Amino acid sequence: MASTTQVSIVLGSKSDEDHIKETTELLDRFGIRWDKRVLSAHRDPERLHAYVREAESAGVRVFIAVAGLSAALPGVIGSVTPLPVIGLPVPAGALKGVDALLAMVQMPGGIPVATVGLGSNGSKNAAVLAAEILALGEPAVAEKIRRYRDELKSK
Amino acid sequence: MASTTQVSIVLGSKSDEDHIKETTELLDRFGIRWDKRVLSAHRDPERLHAYVREAESAGVRVFIAVAGLSAALPGVIGSVTPLPVIGLPVPAGALKGVDALLAMVQMPGGIPVATVGLGSNGSKNAAVLAAEILALGEPAVAEKIRRYRDELKSK
Amino acid sequence: MASTTQVSIVLGSKSDEDHIKETTELLDRFGIRWDKRVLSAHRDPERLHAYVREAESAGVRVFIAVAGLSAALPGVIGSVTPLPVIGLPVPAGALKGVDALLAMVQMPGGIPVATVGLGSNGSKNAAVLAAEILALGEPAVAEKIRRYRDELKSK
Amino acid sequence: MASTTQVSIVLGSKSDEDHIKETTELLDRFGIRWDKRVLSAHRDPERLHAYVREAESAGVRVFIAVAGLSAALPGVIGSVTPLPVIGLPVPAGALKGVDALLAMVQMPGGIPVATVGLGSNGSKNAAVLAAEILALGEPAVAEKIRRYRDELKSK
Amino acid sequence: MASTTQVSIVLGSKSDEDHIKETTELLDRFGIRWDKRVLSAHRDPERLHAYVREAESAGVRVFIAVAGLSAALPGVIGSVTPLPVIGLPVPAGALKGVDALLAMVQMPGGIPVATVGLGSNGSKNAAVLAAEILALGEPAVAEKIRRYRDELKSK
Amino acid sequence: MASTTQVSIVLGSKSDEDHIKETTELLDRFGIRWDKRVLSAHRDPERLHAYVREAESAGVRVFIAVAGLSAALPGVIGSVTPLPVIGLPVPAGALKGVDALLAMVQMPGGIPVATVGLGSNGSKNAAVLAAEILALGEPAVAEKIRRYRDELKSK
Amino acid sequence: MASTTQVSIVLGSKSDEDHIKETTELLDRFGIRWDKRVLSAHRDPERLHAYVREAESAGVRVFIAVAGLSAALPGVIGSVTPLPVIGLPVPAGALKGVDALLAMVQMPGGIPVATVGLGSNGSKNAAVLAAEILALGEPAVAEKIRRYRDELKSK
Amino acid sequence: MASTTQVSIVLGSKSDEDHIKETTELLDRFGIRWDKRVLSAHRDPERLHAYVREAESAGVRVFIAVAGLSAALPGVIGSVTPLPVIGLPVPAGALKGVDALLAMVQMPGGIPVATVGLGSNGSKNAAVLAAEILALGEPAVAEKIRRYRDELKSK
Repeated sequence: MASTTQVSIVLGSKSDEDHIKETTELLDRFGIRWDKRVLSAHRDPERLHAYVREAESAGVRVFIAVAGLSAALPGVIGSVTPLPVIGLPVPAGALKGVDALLAMVQMPGGIPVATVGLGSNGSKNAAVLAAEILALGEPAVAEKIRRYRDELKSK
Repeated sequence: MASTTQVSIVLGSKSDEDHIKETTELLDRFGIRWDKRVLSAHRDPERLHAYVREAESAGVRVFIAVAGLSAALPGVIGSVTPLPVIGLPVPAGALKGVDALLAMVQMPGGIPVATVGLGSNGSKNAAVLAAEILALGEPAVAEKIRRYRDELKSK
Repeated sequence: MASTTQVSIVLGSKSDEDHIKETTELLDRFGIRWDKRVLSAHRDPERLHAYVREAESAGVRVFIAVAGLSAALPGVIGSVTPLPVIGLPVPAGALKGVDALLAMVQMPGGIPVATVGLGSNGSKNAAVLAAEILALGEPAVAEKIRRYRDELKSK
Repeated sequence: MASTTQVSIVLGSKSDEDHIKETTELLDRFGIRWDKRVLSAHRDPERLHAYVREAESAGVRVFIAVAGLSAALPGVIGSVTPLPVIGLPVPAGALKGVDALLAMVQMPGGIPVATVGLGSNGSKNAAVLAAEILALGEPAVAEKIRRYRDELKSK
Repeated sequence: MASTTQVSIVLGSKSDEDHIKETTELLDRFGIRWDKRVLSAHRDPERLHAYVREAESAGVRVFIAVAGLSAALPGVIGSVTPLPVIGLPVPAGALKGVDALLAMVQMPGGIPVATVGLGSNGSKNAAVLAAEILALGEPAVAEKIRRYRDELKSK
Repeated sequence: MASTTQVSIVLGSKSDEDHIKETTELLDRFGIRWDKRVLSAHRDPERLHAYVREAESAGVRVFIAVAGLSAALPGVIGSVTPLPVIGLPVPAGALKGVDALLAMVQMPGGIPVATVGLGSNGSKNAAVLAAEILALGEPAVAEKIRRYRDELKSK
Repeated sequence: MASTTQVSIVLGSKSDEDHIKETTELLDRFGIRWDKRVLSAHRDPERLHAYVREAESAGVRVFIAVAGLSAALPGVIGSVTPLPVIGLPVPAGALKGVDALLAMVQMPGGIPVATVGLGSNGSKNAAVLAAEILALGEPAVAEKIRRYRDELKSK
Repeated sequence: MASTTQVSIVLGSKSDEDHIKETTELLDRFGIRWDKRVLSAHRDPERLHAYVREAESAGVRVFIAVAGLSAALPGVIGSVTPLPVIGLPVPAGALKGVDALLAMVQMPGGIPVATVGLGSNGSKNAAVLAAEILALGEPAVAEKIRRYRDELKSK
């Protein structure tokens, strides 16, 4: 992970990768430097903990956690770091992601997950929300969001 | 609204006020300056639009939108400003807030709402999430979050 | 928009257009003049507000709002105009339109949305409901509804 | 039923009466003349059919049908008359009215029910929607809605 | 309808016909004489009422009502006749028949619908339940059910 | 069990007894002889099997099975006897009986459960459905149902 | 059934066989001897009871019950034997296995079903859970689980 | 923790303690030695990890994890130890524990949680399931389960 990485995307499983194409395209568009890892909260919690700490030290500012089913990933990241964690639930499995959505949003008090929606819109919004947060300290990102929103209007 | 307000809390209706007691207590604890308004997306959209623009100009950095039922409030705020909008769904009505939760989280691409959970935990997490976002630019808030998290551990 | 337009159909997104084919066919059959626009409540609220006001001035009598996900569109139209607003939820996304249905029907007191069902039946019923409303003041439309209902019987 | 009745409220059962207090108060406020009957679609379909036809002949313009559980009432009224039928689902029983809401909104093509929400907001919105429909032909009602909406704003 | 018809199958719409193939095959196997009609509770209530009365007079003993969405059909049949009515919900539409299932089963007191499940198993069970009811008065049907159940065991 | 018992009511647990008060009152009114037992499908399957066989031999014609949660009771009765089994789901527990309703209605092909609704209406309908089935062979019961239905109309 | 069988897999229907491929592959990998039967709780309860007793006598230690819809199978096995019963719900039918999941997990006190999830992950977890239970008494299985978990980490 | 502890009960929060009264009573009855801790997966993951490892070393054989909302607790325990983990979802919050139930049962492949039901029955079944697992290696527990089951029968 480069020392300049701003957003760290963590995927609960390799199969979730399809769901972040629109996320990374938008991060690129906003000029945000990102890193991507597949790290399971359940299969390898230690490596996940270590990675989150390392990312925090390296200067990462926002996490995007992508997971399906009993999606513990964003909550586990939030349990390790006080940085903002965005939860992107994956609309997979018999319950189409309702399980993942509830598992992400219904966090205990003190460890929030900023949850966005299911599907393509959620994939985009994970990036836009990360950009909105970074934009508070980076006028260049704020400017790019403004242009992006103007484009949305003219569509 | 003071020119130093950092977080603006907007309530869809007066009856939602019970749901932000824990939110404002935590914001106070984190030393964050907040403002609170009851402004309905449906009953008075123009005043809401005007307030959001005014708040943005005055330097507000994060919105917390609190609403029940077909909770359009955070989305409408997000349609006016590119600042981060946190959505706190109110667990009221026949559907116990499931309607509000879905209305907040399932936003179209480009206009994210950072949704937190239903009930007391959500009320707290709206504040903690706002603090986490502000902490990126304010070391004093970051320090206070760290202490708060340490306290959670020892509980 | 022609000054004689009776029904204005507003779509939250271009992709919703498939869901109004049966709607416009039935409006045509009832001899009702309609207009169709893609205008997002979230991506361009100002243009939407302006359009609703303009439509109201031009003499539009009923709105049909078509949207999916956290479908704020009919509610936002209703917040601008006291004309009847029919909500047609789009059965798309991981939740198959249950989110849109709830977001439309669970409106706060004072700003109703006349919600119809999901899918092909809903698409037809948006048109029939609009016709039933207009028929109160237009005997020709009433007559056409009667013939349509007779046909349904013989099917 | 007076020959001047504009809105007919039909209740599926006596126990539903609590749910229309706000409905009738608002109808009174809008100066709309209404009639109220308890008539079950399941227990006495013939009397219901006869009443709907009679009401139609007497000049009623809009029906409001109030029912819980497998709420067939608005659909049965719609099967008899082409007048607009507003469905108000009652949030009672083990499913808290979700059954009634779906039974009302998911109508087959050709026989729409203009469904409003569950609970106190829905009770109000049944009246407001009826008023909005009548207002198309009665400027006095339109004027009263405008004042009502202005009041909502100042609340 | 032959005067010897024992079971009358009523379909809410032509498109429901696929769902009764297994029903009629089993009725045939049990030696039960059946009749089938497409009659909508919403589109032509009078013809439905007339048919139910006629069927009752002709000696029909059990109704099977097949419908989707806000499936009022079995309830409307039950409102006309005290004969047993079996409800077979059709798993169609955005809600996959959950709406139809609830609309059938959640009947008001006094007018029961004997509801069976969604899908192929339900289609079979509508026939088996009808046969079980008829078997109380017809030993030959009882004997055929016994053989059918023995076959199920050996599968 | 008297040799003249017509309907056997089986309760999955003692706590379900409140839910059959209206059932037995109506059975009494229809002049139907009934028997009541608490017998668990899970805690004592053998006694349940033995009882069902005994009841069948004694001439019982219809079973009413009352259970909550993962309500296997009616299905297990149906697995032992080809007599009609009516399932009355108990609206208890965290899921308010939705679990029991689904467990009863979603039976595999060949072993139907005639499911009625949740709550007081279901309790009544279990009795009315049993009566409707018995009425096919007993004109006296048929006559009593007719009078009951007439009374419902005049309420 | 060999006298050395450790895990007995019971399927409610032949069509459930696809759902245990991953289960048996993992049991093989853990060196666990298993047996597989198709035995319906509803269609042939006696043979199921007999088999469960026989399996218990033969030394089977854990049951895995696989069923869809109103999945009574694991509960019925649990009613016959005090051995641990793992429930694997099949994600089939209109409700995608939510019915089966609730029917398995919501057991009455005293007769637990150790329920795992819907779909491919559940199929694997039925095997892993069985292995974890056996591993308490068999160090060789414990060792194989450890290796399996290490492999999961490195994936 | 005594070196002889067999079952470790971990609670996600102090408020969950009411839900294990029946659990510990039954463990006592079965003569099983247990330990109880409040340890949050989200608020203090490190202490939880440390405790699980310590418990494993001390000879604990089964974990019972009790949690509400986005109940990550059992999954996190399962990520640290290959011992069997029983998940007891707490029926609290706006969703009455459906969120907790799904978060527990829908685990990724490899890390199972043996989930039991919501409410009093689940509280008992967590204990009975733990006893059934231990009974495989301890004839005394097996004997006590047999007596307990006999008592259930005679109730």
